[in-house]
Amino acid sequence: MIYNPEKPYKEQILGLIKKTWNTPYVSIHDGAYSVFRRKFDYPEVDHTDGIGTKGIYHWKKRSFKGAVLDALAMNLNDLAMARAVPYKLQCHIIVPEDDQRAIMEIIKSLVTECMKLKIAITGGETSVQNNMDGLDISLTVSGFVRREKRNKFQAGDILVGFASNGLHSNGFTMVRNAFANRFRKELIEPTVMYLKSIQDIQERYDIHGMMHITGGAFTRLKGLLSKTDAVITNDHSLKPQGIFRELYAHRITDRDMYKTFNCGIGFILAVSKKDALGIVTQIKGADIIGEVTQGSGKVRIASMFSGKRIKI
Amino acid sequence: MIYNPEKPYKEQILGLIKKTWNTPYVSIHDGAYSVFRRKFDYPEVDHTDGIGTKGIYHWKKRSFKGAVLDALAMNLNDLAMARAVPYKLQCHIIVPEDDQRAIMEIIKSLVTECMKLKIAITGGETSVQNNMDGLDISLTVSGFVRREKRNKFQAGDILVGFASNGLHSNGFTMVRNAFANRFRKELIEPTVMYLKSIQDIQERYDIHGMMHITGGAFTRLKGLLSKTDAVITNDHSLKPQGIFRELYAHRITDRDMYKTFNCGIGFILAVSKKDALGIVTQIKGADIIGEVTQGSGKVRIASMFSGKRIKI
Repeated sequence: MIYNPEKPYKEQILGLIKKTWNTPYVSIHDGAYSVFRRKFDYPEVDHTDGIGTKGIYHWKKRSFKGAVLDALAMNLNDLAMARAVPYKLQCHIIVPEDDQRAIMEIIKSLVTECMKLKIAITGGETSVQNNMDGLDISLTVSGFVRREKRNKFQAGDILVGFASNGLHSNGFTMVRNAFANRFRKELIEPTVMYLKSIQDIQERYDIHGMMHITGGAFTRLKGLLSKTDAVITNDHSLKPQGIFRELYAHRITDRDMYKTFNCGIGFILAVSKKDALGIVTQIKGADIIGEVTQGSGKVRIASMFSGKRIKI
Repeated sequence: MIYNPEKPYKEQILGLIKKTWNTPYVSIHDGAYSVFRRKFDYPEVDHTDGIGTKGIYHWKKRSFKGAVLDALAMNLNDLAMARAVPYKLQCHIIVPEDDQRAIMEIIKSLVTECMKLKIAITGGETSVQNNMDGLDISLTVSGFVRREKRNKFQAGDILVGFASNGLHSNGFTMVRNAFANRFRKELIEPTVMYLKSIQDIQERYDIHGMMHITGGAFTRLKGLLSKTDAVITNDHSLKPQGIFRELYAHRITDRDMYKTFNCGIGFILAVSKKDALGIVTQIKGADIIGEVTQGSGKVRIASMFSGKRIKI
């Protein structure tokens, strides 16, 4: 519907948002309400996610573009798993004070990214709430699915990991406990967006299963296992970044590290050996990180921190 | 997509949400992702809104059902203006601590209401964030529009108001300034949902324009005016509730009252005189509150508080 900020500058925001309306996927009326029609006839998935307590740091450092990239990546990486093509979104932005410059910068960044991604912004809301310490950007992104496929790891699959660039957007409660109020630039580094890489390879290779390593980290793989185990080695190139090593030094166990953080691996695919070699050659920052064996739904990891073998 | 709470009890939540999937409007796969197909071919509108700082009180008093009703009403009342039939939603819930009982109560209430309303929950997220004082429930609701119509007040129209039941879900920043930390039960009274009333009358009567009186209160009417004024009298039955009179006693001006609060009128329609009489007879709590005259886009109100005439 129409964009509904609490305060004026609504016209300015509307003007920006309308820039995203010219896409191959929807047609939108420029009337009282942004009534839209789809130009496709595929089934769809919706996905909602926000940036959580990482918004504390983005607000402090006014890294609004980073906050937008985080919100988009959190949603688009999950939509990638469903092989969905995102085509529209609604945003819900919470700011702790009526800072018009901040709000405009957030909307501008979102509009810029959406134009690149061919995502129409069909509406949203900005809420000024002084009961929030920090910023939240929560998006609901809709995508269409040209061809549905199962998402399951198979015994004999090779696991390919895509490099993260650090914390991404989860585990920040634990991060805040460890680092208290000390700021470091790694805390606002935006989440890597894997959607494009997945779209680039999903037609050429047969991806059996894939998982975005975010909230819940490596425990998320369990949903893709049945009578199989995911076995992850520590002799590959996707090393935990320095920030993870520091967290580990704060007496977080190996198990909690892998249950909470991506530890250097932001996205995991299960494919045949042949496809694994092709993908690793094609995609920068991808490496073979393990395999799928017969088993009982466990994730077995050789820790990059201590070398210990853990089981989730 | 799949429901994505930060913590376990995911299966329980998924089980609840699936109860909403049997509607006349969509078919949803029960697979890895809730992929859906529409059973209609109408244009659509989406709408996003949250409960704002009213969530502070709902969290304190654990009035989770009320919080859900507020979130739904805020979205559905706006969708009613676009003559949209809501058919699916995504939710984004923020709670300040990992209170499983609270989360389950919120989801249960949402599921119950959605089943009544034939709205499928296609997914959502629960985020535990201790940087939030209170609760937030933000929804993105999609609706289809069988027949698009202009939404504009016309000179000569009669204005019909629908009674609010108090504060509804906006102006809480001003409420908190006035009442500080004193709690009163009016602060958690859920917003009236007008959608059903509008659906009941929109085929029988020719509604020229309508407005949900929420954030921005009576200033919102300005968007429906052109070369016309909305003139609201104070000799009708929709009196400001006691809570508004108390707020007014806190030295808030008449003008700020009507720019911030619904002051007893939650929804306004502009119709012909004949239709106005029909609607007032049919709908409980509806009354004629004024008229639309030729003018310059102003809202003119005879204040119920002081009797003063104000212009917005």
